[in-house]
Amino acid sequence: MATVDLNCDLGESFGAYTIGMDASLMPYITSANVACGYHAGDAIVMEKTARLCKENNVAIGAHPGFPDLQGFGRRNLAVTPAEAKVYVQYQVGALLAFCREQGLTLHHVKPHGALYNMAAKDYALAEGICLGIKAAAPDTVMLGLSGSEMIKAAEAVGLKAANEVFADRAYQPDGTLVPRKQPGAMIEDEDEAIARVIRMVKEGKVKANDGTDISIKADSICVHGDNPKALDFTSRIRKALEDAGVEVKSF
Amino acid sequence: MATVDLNCDLGESFGAYTIGMDASLMPYITSANVACGYHAGDAIVMEKTARLCKENNVAIGAHPGFPDLQGFGRRNLAVTPAEAKVYVQYQVGALLAFCREQGLTLHHVKPHGALYNMAAKDYALAEGICLGIKAAAPDTVMLGLSGSEMIKAAEAVGLKAANEVFADRAYQPDGTLVPRKQPGAMIEDEDEAIARVIRMVKEGKVKANDGTDISIKADSICVHGDNPKALDFTSRIRKALEDAGVEVKSF
Amino acid sequence: MATVDLNCDLGESFGAYTIGMDASLMPYITSANVACGYHAGDAIVMEKTARLCKENNVAIGAHPGFPDLQGFGRRNLAVTPAEAKVYVQYQVGALLAFCREQGLTLHHVKPHGALYNMAAKDYALAEGICLGIKAAAPDTVMLGLSGSEMIKAAEAVGLKAANEVFADRAYQPDGTLVPRKQPGAMIEDEDEAIARVIRMVKEGKVKANDGTDISIKADSICVHGDNPKALDFTSRIRKALEDAGVEVKSF
Amino acid sequence: MATVDLNCDLGESFGAYTIGMDASLMPYITSANVACGYHAGDAIVMEKTARLCKENNVAIGAHPGFPDLQGFGRRNLAVTPAEAKVYVQYQVGALLAFCREQGLTLHHVKPHGALYNMAAKDYALAEGICLGIKAAAPDTVMLGLSGSEMIKAAEAVGLKAANEVFADRAYQPDGTLVPRKQPGAMIEDEDEAIARVIRMVKEGKVKANDGTDISIKADSICVHGDNPKALDFTSRIRKALEDAGVEVKSF
Repeated sequence: MATVDLNCDLGESFGAYTIGMDASLMPYITSANVACGYHAGDAIVMEKTARLCKENNVAIGAHPGFPDLQGFGRRNLAVTPAEAKVYVQYQVGALLAFCREQGLTLHHVKPHGALYNMAAKDYALAEGICLGIKAAAPDTVMLGLSGSEMIKAAEAVGLKAANEVFADRAYQPDGTLVPRKQPGAMIEDEDEAIARVIRMVKEGKVKANDGTDISIKADSICVHGDNPKALDFTSRIRKALEDAGVEVKSF
Repeated sequence: MATVDLNCDLGESFGAYTIGMDASLMPYITSANVACGYHAGDAIVMEKTARLCKENNVAIGAHPGFPDLQGFGRRNLAVTPAEAKVYVQYQVGALLAFCREQGLTLHHVKPHGALYNMAAKDYALAEGICLGIKAAAPDTVMLGLSGSEMIKAAEAVGLKAANEVFADRAYQPDGTLVPRKQPGAMIEDEDEAIARVIRMVKEGKVKANDGTDISIKADSICVHGDNPKALDFTSRIRKALEDAGVEVKSF
Repeated sequence: MATVDLNCDLGESFGAYTIGMDASLMPYITSANVACGYHAGDAIVMEKTARLCKENNVAIGAHPGFPDLQGFGRRNLAVTPAEAKVYVQYQVGALLAFCREQGLTLHHVKPHGALYNMAAKDYALAEGICLGIKAAAPDTVMLGLSGSEMIKAAEAVGLKAANEVFADRAYQPDGTLVPRKQPGAMIEDEDEAIARVIRMVKEGKVKANDGTDISIKADSICVHGDNPKALDFTSRIRKALEDAGVEVKSF
Repeated sequence: MATVDLNCDLGESFGAYTIGMDASLMPYITSANVACGYHAGDAIVMEKTARLCKENNVAIGAHPGFPDLQGFGRRNLAVTPAEAKVYVQYQVGALLAFCREQGLTLHHVKPHGALYNMAAKDYALAEGICLGIKAAAPDTVMLGLSGSEMIKAAEAVGLKAANEVFADRAYQPDGTLVPRKQPGAMIEDEDEAIARVIRMVKEGKVKANDGTDISIKADSICVHGDNPKALDFTSRIRKALEDAGVEVKSF
């Protein structure tokens, strides 16, 4: 039976600032990527989010990002692989202290935002990140863009790797995402997005933006929960997957 | 045979900024309190400092402080006990990721600066800190001001506790330090400071600033290493302790 | 004819984080206290907020706070008067660059949060703040708690001062606010709050929490706009003041 | 008579951290680029540095950088031109508050580090920076890499521009600097560096790394003062310029 994980970024609030509808989202997802205080999140939020994961039986992952709260970790920052390594190691370590308190095992680490995107294409950076994960939590799984340099680096350094796909994004023939700025980058039609995702999971294929079919590995689907519409779409995806005979559970 | 630990704050550099003479200090101390990125230190520095501890066989401790880099953690900040708990938990977790990489066990946690001073007198705050330590590293030792609320809180929450004394500071009859702003707060004469410290370790006594003898528990002596003079004094203390038949080793 | 200003804290969003309903609030207030990047706000938000003030003909003020984004500037921080001086000076200077762009004169400076509360009772700190205002913008008005040390310090250093009152807070016989943690600190009944504020403006009197009448100077009323209920209350206050023959305009 | 300015980055200390030998350097330079709190410097340091400039009759400039204290502003950060504009505007405004206190006019603005380097080649970014300078201080001078996009953008938006040259760096035939990572990037020989700089000032020419002579405009020479050797070299450059009949003064 085909299985797939539904992951979502959360724990992104900071101090007096709230982002996301974390508690409402919990019933629909199987794993959570928790911000670790560099690009979003703080220690108060991390404690609360770990507890939420525990209560909802959602697998907890770390979501380390660039030290750029003002840019929410979405701006490219020219760090060295050695800097990326220790930045990830630090953030994963910090989250581990909240997992331990809840009796939770750290399920995975998924780089955030610009760090994720840069590392998908830059092997040296990807390797730095993976070495940081390995140093802090050698038994955890690295979750990265399906087929990217991140997956290769994780396997090379001896980490388990899981491949992430996107329901709402178009793919290029080489398996990379169509950049957001290009026309056709987003799959706007919800039914089409859902149909694509089911096919990725069950057949390991997706139609690229040139019309050809490409192979894709879908261990986990990235969903969103920062507004009511996203929440609704997430619940639709989950139901559609289950109706199609896919078991939705953490990898 | 009497034994005592010599501890020093280090790993306090940040980015392009250097503070301290960490490498030079290593031969003289038996345990290190490593800054964790809130009031000083960064991930690069933490990695390097953990390696230095490993190479020099110095016991590694976490030195969590207030999130106040601009004030070096030396300014009182009115956090709640719940905030103190997660701030400590976060920082200890972060350092653990660097200990693990070196195969080191976290030896102790010592709060830094204003957090240390406030918690020495405020049981609720002290308890918050100790709960944070326990959540992140339940088997480690809390190192705090000898006889203070920190020691009581550590024991109450089920942590091991170690009592810290100061060679260069005067004590009041109730066992607390003479505030720095008062005359006579510092023991300026080095020979006197050394003699006092040896007596604290061997007899468990020190002369308070009213001339009376008080009892004091000395598990660890705080030394400094941020300038050549401090370094020299630290080496003198160590030698004097050994000459007096005290074994200098981590607790 | 009696006149009074309605001021509100805004420009408190930061990066990807939004707080407040700034645009909706503009029609109801006569002056704005704009966060300056220490406890809230960033350069993007400051530019946008200055433009909003210009478009709505709302007098713009600076709202400097402690360098504590995580605590939103609401936690006491033991800065020296010299630190407070330069922190305020820096933040006021930064906002001035956005006022200048819009052709706006800086109307006032109101300290934020814990800095406001601490300085209301601590003359040395209040003086530090006022010296910072004077160094950056000698012709502006200091807006502080009515009758507090801030008002005294402003006058002593040669700044104009304006007295702020609160519609929803109870007063003690000495003119200070009933601390939030005490029962009866908040005036929950909206009609009562409005009646009190009109009396403060027209008669210069308010009933303290011991039942006695005290004198109070009301140059400006602090209102809120961070949720629909607060917004509605602000519009009610404004209408009630105008119905009572009070001219609502910036001081 | 040929004239040239000697500029140096300073005011880069932060909190408990000290960088640079600012006071010792003052006698040798004619203008100072003062860090503004994003990549280095803080409000305490800015106040002190402005006073130092006043006392030494050194022209004061702002040195805005990326919000990256951990990286000292030396890492490329993918900000938009609109972000660069307000970041510069904010920092220039903050420094202006300290200039005003000393009765100083802001002499110039020179972008720092990675912001400087990126903008030298990226017109859109350069324009954003120049618009931020113009918004905060329309009458000041933009100091940027000689002949770069920064100079073009400054002139296009209506700012005065000054061209900066480097004594210790090799140039490419198109007038850009040889990247630091390439062999031959640095002019190691001090006498050669001094001779080159004198020729740039007096003849407007420098030998590029392919051996050809290129034209270069030298309004200001960048010198360093963060260690005794740099300080000594700066004093040698100044003396050599004066001996060669060049008047050393701020532009």
